[in-house]
Amino acid sequence: MRILGIDPGLQTTGFGVIDADGPRLSYVASGTIRTTSGVAQGDLPARLKILFDGVREVATTYQVTCAAVEIVFVNVNPQSTLLLGQARGAALTALVSCDLPVAEYTALQMKKAVVGHGHAKKEQIQMMVQRLLQLPGEPGKDAADALGLAIMHAHAGASFAAMGKHTTLQRRQHAQFRGGRTY
Amino acid sequence: MRILGIDPGLQTTGFGVIDADGPRLSYVASGTIRTTSGVAQGDLPARLKILFDGVREVATTYQVTCAAVEIVFVNVNPQSTLLLGQARGAALTALVSCDLPVAEYTALQMKKAVVGHGHAKKEQIQMMVQRLLQLPGEPGKDAADALGLAIMHAHAGASFAAMGKHTTLQRRQHAQFRGGRTY
Repeated sequence: MRILGIDPGLQTTGFGVIDADGPRLSYVASGTIRTTSGVAQGDLPARLKILFDGVREVATTYQVTCAAVEIVFVNVNPQSTLLLGQARGAALTALVSCDLPVAEYTALQMKKAVVGHGHAKKEQIQMMVQRLLQLPGEPGKDAADALGLAIMHAHAGASFAAMGKHTTLQRRQHAQFRGGRTY
Repeated sequence: MRILGIDPGLQTTGFGVIDADGPRLSYVASGTIRTTSGVAQGDLPARLKILFDGVREVATTYQVTCAAVEIVFVNVNPQSTLLLGQARGAALTALVSCDLPVAEYTALQMKKAVVGHGHAKKEQIQMMVQRLLQLPGEPGKDAADALGLAIMHAHAGASFAAMGKHTTLQRRQHAQFRGGRTY
């Protein structure tokens, strides 16, 4: 399967695409979508359109088969929370409008999967992503997070497949991811 | 112009479509988009897809030419703020993906435009929307808010046109709406 990882943000959204063939992972592409140039900073609809179009373009260009998006948390600044929520809404919408199945993981889960513990620093994620995908150089921070999410999803998918209980387990795990959060 | 008003929410999004021919307003359609049936409550991507598809369907069915969306505010519960943000992001994205120009107004502005003061209750908005659009009965609460936003936009558009300074004023007013908020 070809997995698209997305680390959503209003200013910068990281993306990372990998191929997962059982336990074998290979790098396809990564980068960032920026909404800060060419439109007024206060024009939120225009910025969300750049984000939406960018995510769709990545998904279609690389013909991905599924996506993994970081679960964002509330910010100290409620206004920032609201903006981050809107950016994440635009990114999720772009993925589902391409009919992609979308999994959601926390940064903690991604760090555990990639580095081995949940308190890893950005640099450690970049280094481990470089190693796991045998990259010639370190990916950028946002791209590394996005690639880390794709790796997390590959691991989760491989575990589920090995256990032959994909659907039930995934649902249960998703319920845990959200910490009992009720939408 | 044919205006689509949107009152965004994760559970229920109200929509209202009106025609504005100078000061003359006429009702076209209104209703609500619900994301609560047919999908698991915790499946946020699926719920955002219902919302996105619903807004797009309304926009294309009624061939609207512009949209007005309520500016939402932070909730007492930060988690609710995050969810509302994602819902609003999906709704905005649906509109811009149809290449519609989108204006944003606060509930306070809408109430002032429709009822005459910013502290109007839901019932007063429903009653005034019914009168202004000469409806045979009161619209539902979410639909009334959405129709109110469309009416607000018609008034704003008419004022701008009359003053012949549309773009500059709209920009300035937008800056005021957001209370100096920096995206």
